[in-house]
Order: sequence, then structure tokens, then C-alpha cells
Amino acid sequence: MDKKYDLIVIGTGPAGEKAAVKAAYFGYKVAIIDKQKPYGGAAVVTGTLPSNTLKETALYFSGAYEKGLYGIEKHLDRKTSIADFMYRKNYVTCNAAYAVEINLILHKIDCYDGLASFIDPHTLKISSLEGGQTIQGEHIIIATGSYPCHPQDIDFSHAQIHDSDTILDIDHFPKSLCIVGAGVIGCEYSTIFSTMGTKVHLVNDHSQILNFIDSEITEKLVNQMQRGGVNIHFSTTVKNVEPVNKNNSLRIELDNGEVLETDIFLYAAGRNGQIKALNCEKIGLNTGPRETIVVDETYRTNISNIYAVGDVIGFPTLASTSMDQGRVAVAHIFKTEDLNNLSTLFPLGIYTIPEVSTAGITEEEAKKQKIRYGIGRARYKDILRGKILGVGDDSFLKLVFEMETKRIIGVHIIGPLATEIVHFGLLLVQDNKLLSDILRTVFNYPTLHELYKYAAYDGLSNLKGHKIKL
Amino acid sequence: MDKKYDLIVIGTGPAGEKAAVKAAYFGYKVAIIDKQKPYGGAAVVTGTLPSNTLKETALYFSGAYEKGLYGIEKHLDRKTSIADFMYRKNYVTCNAAYAVEINLILHKIDCYDGLASFIDPHTLKISSLEGGQTIQGEHIIIATGSYPCHPQDIDFSHAQIHDSDTILDIDHFPKSLCIVGAGVIGCEYSTIFSTMGTKVHLVNDHSQILNFIDSEITEKLVNQMQRGGVNIHFSTTVKNVEPVNKNNSLRIELDNGEVLETDIFLYAAGRNGQIKALNCEKIGLNTGPRETIVVDETYRTNISNIYAVGDVIGFPTLASTSMDQGRVAVAHIFKTEDLNNLSTLFPLGIYTIPEVSTAGITEEEAKKQKIRYGIGRARYKDILRGKILGVGDDSFLKLVFEMETKRIIGVHIIGPLATEIVHFGLLLVQDNKLLSDILRTVFNYPTLHELYKYAAYDGLSNLKGHKIKL
Repeated sequence: MDKKYDLIVIGTGPAGEKAAVKAAYFGYKVAIIDKQKPYGGAAVVTGTLPSNTLKETALYFSGAYEKGLYGIEKHLDRKTSIADFMYRKNYVTCNAAYAVEINLILHKIDCYDGLASFIDPHTLKISSLEGGQTIQGEHIIIATGSYPCHPQDIDFSHAQIHDSDTILDIDHFPKSLCIVGAGVIGCEYSTIFSTMGTKVHLVNDHSQILNFIDSEITEKLVNQMQRGGVNIHFSTTVKNVEPVNKNNSLRIELDNGEVLETDIFLYAAGRNGQIKALNCEKIGLNTGPRETIVVDETYRTNISNIYAVGDVIGFPTLASTSMDQGRVAVAHIFKTEDLNNLSTLFPLGIYTIPEVSTAGITEEEAKKQKIRYGIGRARYKDILRGKILGVGDDSFLKLVFEMETKRIIGVHIIGPLATEIVHFGLLLVQDNKLLSDILRTVFNYPTLHELYKYAAYDGLSNLKGHKIKL
Repeated sequence: MDKKYDLIVIGTGPAGEKAAVKAAYFGYKVAIIDKQKPYGGAAVVTGTLPSNTLKETALYFSGAYEKGLYGIEKHLDRKTSIADFMYRKNYVTCNAAYAVEINLILHKIDCYDGLASFIDPHTLKISSLEGGQTIQGEHIIIATGSYPCHPQDIDFSHAQIHDSDTILDIDHFPKSLCIVGAGVIGCEYSTIFSTMGTKVHLVNDHSQILNFIDSEITEKLVNQMQRGGVNIHFSTTVKNVEPVNKNNSLRIELDNGEVLETDIFLYAAGRNGQIKALNCEKIGLNTGPRETIVVDETYRTNISNIYAVGDVIGFPTLASTSMDQGRVAVAHIFKTEDLNNLSTLFPLGIYTIPEVSTAGITEEEAKKQKIRYGIGRARYKDILRGKILGVGDDSFLKLVFEMETKRIIGVHIIGPLATEIVHFGLLLVQDNKLLSDILRTVFNYPTLHELYKYAAYDGLSNLKGHKIKL
């Protein structure tokens, strides 16, 4: 007889873990399935956490943020290897994966390792090397995540050709690197590797990078990437990649005729939903473009007892939103009434060097919506905390506000700790705060949060055409 | 004939600078007086900015936050001297003082260097080495700041005996240091010097340190200070300090009978208002205890055209609040109607290693007010950003909330970046947000701001007695 559960969750990434734990917390009998350990999904194992930790490692190894500040430099004890570079990442990943496992165990969730596929809407087969078993769930949440796209004409079996998952397995530090795709992953790895001294080429089929970000911010990011040695090839794509055996390198031909020769190739243009093994057709589960699962605003699929959350449903594919999707789905399944919907307003955080983060609408969006808006800016270097940290010219905070009401509608930041300090701005936008509300706020001195006050004063000055600046 | 101004400001610290600039911005004719350059007051020259920059230098030189994280250590190029330790502090201070001066000049404010004293309520005499002159002001703002107390029985003329201003002039790095006063300055310098390897004794006449801070937070700070080698002598005072010529050190006798021998002595127990030179008696200006100037809620003194702001009026003597006092005073003087009062709620930031920051009421205060309250906690080490940064056990965020309504009434943080992330909590307290508002917020992942969500869930679990923790 199959074991029966109130809820089966497929996937232990942020969406799956939080869904399973919440249901267990409310007293339901829960099972969770992952294809293999370590647990934690892309956030912990292949994506956010690894790239974030590598970013910190790159900053530590390079001393990029400290160089020249203290009149006396620091050097590493010895020459570093790729193993040194991956050391902290591996430690943090193991620790975090273990924390996920412990969290599931403490909540008395049954954990199954294997590939899940539907037999019927309530029954899942779990296949592993040890054989197979089936379990039954009153409700099922799909949180299987995504996998990197592989264009057919690129030979990913080659040891120097990677996608955003396998790049973590490189066995030597690349002297040069060609990255395709100037999305979040491509931009993050570009700055991490260039900070480590790798010559980076970033191939981008648009004329802009990160086109969902305010363009004044991305311009500054492009400046800083280029100054850091990233060669961005705009509005072109890769035509051909082939090994040059003589030099043990790769010859990369671009559509615009340019030819690059690099050590490593990283394809980071897009990920698809991980639904192949699920056998969606068999039970008639609706799927969408890029192998996503189609859900309504409660994260329910076309089959009433089956929900889907996280990267497998597509945009915005962020660990942060995925966790709460998991929690919201559980609220609807078990009517816990504690979190029936997600805020439509959420921050975006990009862990490039320097970081970019934003909440609310961009200047372009304000124009498109024909809002009469004003802008206020503050540079890190003009406030004390920025001076202490020695932050350069291109780091700043930008407020977009309605001209009439002075209501703040967008906050955009590029610079150290942008992903932290944006949350204050998130509340400003969410709660319809005015510039005057910022003026009335006392900020710790000296902190980066003072950027908000300086930007608010700048915004008011801009309106009056009364501008005093060097 | 004396030069006449709409406003004369005495002092170029944060309070004076912001007041002068604001009045000039609104078109008034403004003069500012400081006894000497560099401009910027205690915030820039002797207090906040120097100690903050020394904190960053101590972290850089010691590598305290990175040690052991990356499997490979960093070393400084060479042995450091006291000059190296002061290098960045001097650079940042000069740069910031220059920024103040430029800001005054760009706003066409007349700057006078010299000691100001009242001749009558509208006339000030400015005395300098070059001689004297008098100027007249329709309105006058006193922002002269404070100076460190000197108990009479301590000989501050001795090269190894310092107050919180002269400690910046030490000519060698202390092997051992005795600090008197476990207030903000005493605690900050204790952790800065102990991080640099100095053996620190902190003499404290109370049984607690920083008694305006939530005691669960200060307990953790005490733990970390003690682990870092700070020897805190509670509930005792200094009886006698005298040089021991033989060892070139100081013999410090405490009230409890203990005798310490240290290299340097730092008296950091209290500062008084800087009003001596002003000649307040002559014009009948009301003064209060500790040489402060007495003001009403608009920062007006008993003489109707004279206002006072900043450290010279006493509590809370923070650069952050002082700036806004300056702006509020100008709003009242010139009826600009843009900022008529200061928020009664403001954050406190203490730049110890690790930082402490808080907004709203403490647990002790909640008890005293007989509020039925709940507590939610989240440790840095339990969230991903904390794991990446390798933050230790004692760093955490604590929410105090009303049990019935779940309204957040206090936020208390100890750990890296506490002074930044507290601002999110400041808005929560200010806007009467509930725990459920935190649950509905999406935070960038991985950031320290996730502490808020974990603490909110912890708070709800505590209420239900449903607690899952290792």
C-alpha cells in the first residue's frame, strides 16, 4: 500500500523547502522529493549562493574594495588556485544544504531522494538508483526549478565549454573567458571573473544590458565593467564555438564578424523549467513556453490539487519571490489565511561588483506611463560613509518621484550594499511616502542610508532649478 | 560699520553646517563662525568620523571579519605604525572637512575663523590671533558643540593621559590601554583598540554598559568584548592615576582596590557644552546642567532671536539628530514650513566591533510600561548572508512587539551592518507595522534584511509555544 501524505512537494529549493516546512508547521503530514542531495536547489547548490560567495571571495582575493585606501596593502599568503577560489563557496554551500536538510527533518518531513513522475494527479513514482516506489498526496506542489538552456550547435561535452551550472566545476582558473548573455547570471560572473583578473568578453544580443533595470544605472554598470576589463560585445550573438587544439583554447566567432579566442566559454542565456521527468502529459497538466508550468494567481495549476511555485513557473525566478510563492501556495491549499498573496512590489537584487538593486518603477517606465516625474540623486562619494569606504564616482542612489505630489515611485541603486539599502526604499514606494517623509527621518550617521536624504534634497532642488554642485 | 546678516551660525559641525546651508539655500544672508579650521566639528574632526574610520582601519589591519573564512590568509606588506593606523582617518577627515568648507562657500556663506562671544543679542565679537571684529545678526544659532570633561585630579598634561579628543594624537600604538567610561565613546574605542591587539581595561561605574540599550543586546556585546580581550571592570571608578617612571607606564588605582598598569589612559566619561567663550551671562542667556544651553521644542533659547542646536543643548548629542535640529531651527526662524519638528523616533547607532543599533523601545521599557509584549529573534548565522559573511553566534536581530496586536514597537540589532539595517526597522516601528507586514515583504536573497522575516516567524512561533530550533 502506498504511503499517503497531506502534501507532497517536489524539489528542495527555496520554494519547495518553505512550502513543505510551512505545511508541516501547521500540522500536516508532508513528504518532499529531490532528485539527489545536496538539498537546496539552484539557490543553494548551483546558483545564487555559489555566485554570491564567489563574489565575496573575488573581493577578498583581489582586495578590490580596499586597494589604495589604507596606505599599506595586503597580500595573500601564497599564490591561489582554483581550489582556493572554490573553498569558501563549497563550505557555505555544504553548510546551507545541511541547514535545509535539518530544517526538513526537524519538521518531521519525510524526505525521498529520486526523480518524481506523475502516475495520476495524486500518485507520484520516485525513481532512484535503488529502484522505485510510489507515494500518494492529497495535494502536490511542483517546485522543480529550472535548468540551463543548451543550444544544439554548441558542444557542452567539451571540458572548456560550460553552462551556468557546470561553470562551478572548472578545474583551473581561466585566463580568459567568453560569456554569452548579459542577463543577471552573465553580468554577475563577468564582474566576478574580471575582478579575479580574468580577461572577460561578454556577448550580448541587445544594445543594453539588464534591460529591466533603469538605464542610468546600467550605463554606470557598463562603465564600471568596462573599466574593470570586461569587453562587452553589444547587439551580436555567437555564430560558432570550436576548440583550437594547438593553443588549447576556444575560437569563438561572432555574428558581427569578430573572432575571439578564450580559455573558457560560458553560455548563460536563459534557463528552462525542469519538467521533463514529471510526465505532465500523462495527467494533462498545462505547460507554457520555456517548459514552464502554467498557474493562476494562487499558484494552482489546471489540475485542482496540484500547485507549482518557483523557477518552474517562470518570471521572476528569484529565490526571494520563490520562497513566498511556496508559502502562499500552502496558505491556499490549507486555508491558513496568513499569507494569501504576494506583494506585487518586490526588490530586484543583482550581485555584480558593484551591486545593483531597485524597487518600484524606472525612469523609462515613468515616461512610458506618461507620469510627470522628478529625479533626485545622491552619490556615495558625497556622503561620509561613502568617503570612509572609499567608494568611487559611479555609485549612486536615484529616486523617481511624481512631480505634483512628490510621492516616491522608484528607487534605483548601484554601489556597495545596494541590495541591502534598497529595502528602505521598498517601504517608501510601497507605502506611498513623499520626499518630505524622507526629510523628516533621522538616519544613523555615518551610514549609506543617508543617500536617501541627500537624494530627497537633490530632488527638491531639481524641481526648483536651484542646483548647487561642483 | 559692522557687517549685518540675516543669520549668524556659531560652529561648523553637522548642526551648524546644515542650518547655515539651509538658510542660504532659502536666500538669506548668512555668516558662520568657527574657532579654527578644519571645519566640521566633533563629527568630522575629533569624534564620529575619526572613530568610525579607525574602526574600519582596525578591521582592515586585523582582518578580524575574514580570518579563517577563505582557507588562505592575508598579511600586511609590512609592520604597521601609529602613522599607518591614522593614515586613512587623516585622509577622510581632511576630505570631509574640505567638503564642509566647499559646501559653505558654494552657498555664498561668509566664513569667519575665531572665537565668538556675545556683545549683545544681535552682536558677536570674533576674536582671532589676527585681532577682533564684530558682526551683527538678525538671528543667531549657537552650534558650538561640546568638549570632554576633565576631572581635576587627573593630570591631562601628561603625554600618556588622554581625553576623547586628544586620543587621536597618540604618538605610538598602545600595548595596553585603560579607558574610563562605558558609554558610546568608551565602548567604541575599547573594541577598536582590542581588535588592533591592545590589551584594554574598561572601567565602568555601572553594573551594565550602555544602559539605554536593550540588555539582551548589551550582554552579547559584553561577551564579544570580553572574548576580544577587553577586561571590563564593572561598578567601580578610578581613584588615582600616576606615572610609573621606571616602566614608562601609568599606575591606575581603582575604587575596588584593583591596581592596573597600562601604557595609555583614556578618560571618556562625559562631555560638556562648549559655552565658556560665548559670554552667555552678559546677555542673560539661560544655561543648564553640564554647560548646556536651554531651548524649547523649536530650539529657541530664552532670548527670542537666539537658537541653539546640536551637542551644546545636550541629549541625544548625535550628529544625525543635530543636523536635523539645525534644519528645524531654520524652519522656525524663517518660517520655511518644510520641517517644523523632528521625529521623536530616531535610531541609535553604536560603532563598536560588532555594531549595535536600535529603534523603538527596549524589552525593559516594554516591561516598565506594562505592555504585554512578545519577542522574535533571528541570528545572523542562521540566514544565508550571515553564513556567507561567516558571522559568529552572538550577532542577532530582536523584535519587540505587542502581543495582542502584533504591532512592532522595538528593533534591536547587534552584528555587522547593524547601523544600516536598523533603518528598515525604524520605518516598521514608526508606521505601526505588524509582524504580518514583514511576512508579506519580499527581501532580496541573500541579504541581512532577511533577519526581519526570520525574526517575525520566530515571534509568531514563540506566541504559539511552537518552537523548532537546534
